[in-house]
Amino acid sequence: MASVEMIEEEAATGKVKEIYDNIKESIGIDFVPNMYKVMARNPAYLEASWNKIQAVMGRTGKLDDLTKAIIALTVSTMNGCAYCITVYTGAVRKYGLDDDGLTEVAAVIDVFNGLNKFNTGLDVEMDEQPWFG
Amino acid sequence: MASVEMIEEEAATGKVKEIYDNIKESIGIDFVPNMYKVMARNPAYLEASWNKIQAVMGRTGKLDDLTKAIIALTVSTMNGCAYCITVYTGAVRKYGLDDDGLTEVAAVIDVFNGLNKFNTGLDVEMDEQPWFG
Amino acid sequence: MASVEMIEEEAATGKVKEIYDNIKESIGIDFVPNMYKVMARNPAYLEASWNKIQAVMGRTGKLDDLTKAIIALTVSTMNGCAYCITVYTGAVRKYGLDDDGLTEVAAVIDVFNGLNKFNTGLDVEMDEQPWFG
Amino acid sequence: MASVEMIEEEAATGKVKEIYDNIKESIGIDFVPNMYKVMARNPAYLEASWNKIQAVMGRTGKLDDLTKAIIALTVSTMNGCAYCITVYTGAVRKYGLDDDGLTEVAAVIDVFNGLNKFNTGLDVEMDEQPWFG
Amino acid sequence: MASVEMIEEEAATGKVKEIYDNIKESIGIDFVPNMYKVMARNPAYLEASWNKIQAVMGRTGKLDDLTKAIIALTVSTMNGCAYCITVYTGAVRKYGLDDDGLTEVAAVIDVFNGLNKFNTGLDVEMDEQPWFG
Amino acid sequence: MASVEMIEEEAATGKVKEIYDNIKESIGIDFVPNMYKVMARNPAYLEASWNKIQAVMGRTGKLDDLTKAIIALTVSTMNGCAYCITVYTGAVRKYGLDDDGLTEVAAVIDVFNGLNKFNTGLDVEMDEQPWFG
Repeated sequence: MASVEMIEEEAATGKVKEIYDNIKESIGIDFVPNMYKVMARNPAYLEASWNKIQAVMGRTGKLDDLTKAIIALTVSTMNGCAYCITVYTGAVRKYGLDDDGLTEVAAVIDVFNGLNKFNTGLDVEMDEQPWFG
Repeated sequence: MASVEMIEEEAATGKVKEIYDNIKESIGIDFVPNMYKVMARNPAYLEASWNKIQAVMGRTGKLDDLTKAIIALTVSTMNGCAYCITVYTGAVRKYGLDDDGLTEVAAVIDVFNGLNKFNTGLDVEMDEQPWFG
Repeated sequence: MASVEMIEEEAATGKVKEIYDNIKESIGIDFVPNMYKVMARNPAYLEASWNKIQAVMGRTGKLDDLTKAIIALTVSTMNGCAYCITVYTGAVRKYGLDDDGLTEVAAVIDVFNGLNKFNTGLDVEMDEQPWFG
Repeated sequence: MASVEMIEEEAATGKVKEIYDNIKESIGIDFVPNMYKVMARNPAYLEASWNKIQAVMGRTGKLDDLTKAIIALTVSTMNGCAYCITVYTGAVRKYGLDDDGLTEVAAVIDVFNGLNKFNTGLDVEMDEQPWFG
Repeated sequence: MASVEMIEEEAATGKVKEIYDNIKESIGIDFVPNMYKVMARNPAYLEASWNKIQAVMGRTGKLDDLTKAIIALTVSTMNGCAYCITVYTGAVRKYGLDDDGLTEVAAVIDVFNGLNKFNTGLDVEMDEQPWFG
Repeated sequence: MASVEMIEEEAATGKVKEIYDNIKESIGIDFVPNMYKVMARNPAYLEASWNKIQAVMGRTGKLDDLTKAIIALTVSTMNGCAYCITVYTGAVRKYGLDDDGLTEVAAVIDVFNGLNKFNTGLDVEMDEQPWFG
C-alpha cells in the first residue's frame, strides 16, 4: 500500500474517471496503475500531470518512443526508484530492446556515472576547445 | 585548473602518449581533453578507463551513437556535472539533435525525474500487473 | 546563455505569447524568466508545464505559499541547482522568511540529510512500532 | 537487523541510558527507535547527534513543527531513504497533514524536482532580474 | 532475479569462463557474484569492467585495501544501492573494521552529508584563504 | 556572498565568539570559515553542529584523520558541493595524500559509482553467499 489511500477505479467519478479511461486506453492496459490512483487524490494535479506526460511522450517530436523510454529508465536508475525502474524496463522492452540491449543501457550509465564523479571530485576544468565540433 | 596537476601532452611518454594519440584519433580532435590528462597521473587507470569507454561506446551493439550520447547527457544532468553536460551536449548535437531535440531530452528528464520522487515519497506500491505486457 | 537558443519575448506569438503574458502577470514581474524562454522551444511542453505548475502552486490546498516555496527550496538544495536555489530563496523571502528563517531551513536540511545516510549506510531496520502514533 | 549490533535498552547504562530516556520522553513513545540504538555504539556521537536534533527541532524559531517535518520528509524523499520516509510521513501526519496534504507535498516535490533538472541539463542562465522582489 | 537473464557459470565459455575463474580466485570465493553474471551478457564490457576494477583496486598505490573499501561503501551509501552496501560492508569488515568502525564511517558520512547541503542551500562562498595550509 | 548575512568575527560576542575562537584554534587558522559565520546566525545550531563535528572528527576512534578526510571528500564529491570539495581536498592533502593519492581516491569513486548504478538499473539480486567471508 502507498502511504496514502488510493482512489480505486470503482470510486472514480467525473474528471478522474475520464482520465482513468484515457490512461488505460493510451497505455493499452485494463487497469489503472497505482501511481495515477494516488495522484487522483488531487484531481487537478492528476489532470495536469497526465497532460504533461502526454505532451512530452505522445507528441511527434525528434525522439522516438524507445529513446524516450531509455531516458525514463536512465533517470529512474539514477534516482534508484524501484517502482519506476520496473515500469520503464518494461517500456524499453516493449519498444524493442532485449536483455542485451538493457545490459548495454546499464553499461553506458555505469561508464558515464563513474566519469562524472571523477571530473567533479577533481574539479576538472572545461577544455578550451569543444570535444565535438 | 583541476585539483591536481595534469600530464600535458608534451610530457606524455610510452603508454600514456600512445593512449593520448588513440584518444585524439578516436574523437577526431587535435588536443587531449583535460579529463584524460588528469587520469594520466595513473597510467594503469587511464588505460583501463579508456578501454572500458571504448568497449562500451565503440562496439557494435544494440544502441546507436546518438542514443548512447543521450544516455551520457541524461546521467550528467542527473549528477549536475557541468563539465560533462557541456561535453555530452556537444556529442548529442554531433550525432544529430538540434536545439529542439535537446529541449525534448530535457523535457523527458523533467517529467520522469518528477514522477520518480512522487512515487518514492508516497511509497507507491508495485502494480500487480505490468504496464507493458 | 543556455545550451539552446531561447525564444525571446519579441519573437513570441500565439500560444507562447499568451503564456508569457500569463507568467508575467502570475509572478508579478515584467520579464519572462529564462527557464520559460527555453521551454518555449516546445510550445506544447511549455503549456503543459505551466499548467502543472499552476495546478500545484496556485490552487487552494492544504499548504500555504511559504510552505510550498520551502519545499521547492529544499528540493533545489538537494539537487544542487544554483539557478533554482536563487529563485526559490527569493520566493521564500517573499513569503515571509528572513535570514534567520532561511538559516533554519538549511539547518533542518543539514540534520535530516545527515541522518538519512546514517540509516541507509548501516541498513537500519524499520521499527516495529511507529515513532508517531 | 541493521549492519551492526544495536545497543538494546536493557544493555544501556550511564550517559546512553539517560539519552534513551530523554528520547522516549521527547518523542512521547515507550521504545527507543533503532536509529538511536545503532548510534549508541558510539556514545559521544549519539549525544552530539541528539543535541543537534534537539537544537534544530526543539527550539522556538521561525518554523513550526509541521514545516520542519515537511522539510525532513522532502529531504528523505530526495534521498530515497525508506526508513526515514516512513518516520517523517508519520511526523507530518502527527502535525496535521492528512492524505490530501501528503499528496500535495509529493506533488510540489514532483514539480520542482523535474524543473531543477530541466534547468541543469540545458544550463539555463540566471535571470538578470530576480523573480521575486 | 535481475531484470535480465544472467550467464550462469555452467553456461560460461571462452573469455567469460576465464574471467569468471579470475574473479573467483581474486576475491577468494567459489561462486561468481550476480553482478558479474549480468555483465557477462556483454563479454567485452565484462572484461573491460573487470580490468578497470583490477587496475584501481589491485595495484600498489597510495591507498590500502581498507581505505578503498571505505570509499566504496561511502559511495554506495550515497547512492542508496542496497546490493552494493551489503557487499562493501563485508569488504570493510574483511579489511579490519568491526561494528564500532562501521558506525564511525556512517557517523562521518552523516556529518559531512549534512554540512554539504547547508553550504549548497545557502550558497556559502569560498573562503578567501584555505582552511588547510 | 552567501544567501544570508554572515556574523563577522568583529560582531561575534558571548557563546558565538567563544566557538569562533575554538574553531580557529582547532583547525589552526586565523580566520573563521564562511560556513561557520553563516551558522552563527543561529547560535544554538552553531554550537550543536560544532560539538557534533568535534565528537566525530576529534575523538580517538578506529579511523585516522586521513581516512575521515577521504570520507568527507567522497561525500562532497557525490553531492557535487564545490565549497566542500575544495575544503576537504585541502584536508586530504594536509593529512598526507599528494596529487597521485587524490587521483586514486577519484578513481575508486569512479569505479564504484559506476557499478552501483549498473546494479540498481538492472535490479541485480543479492548473492546467496557473501563475497567476503
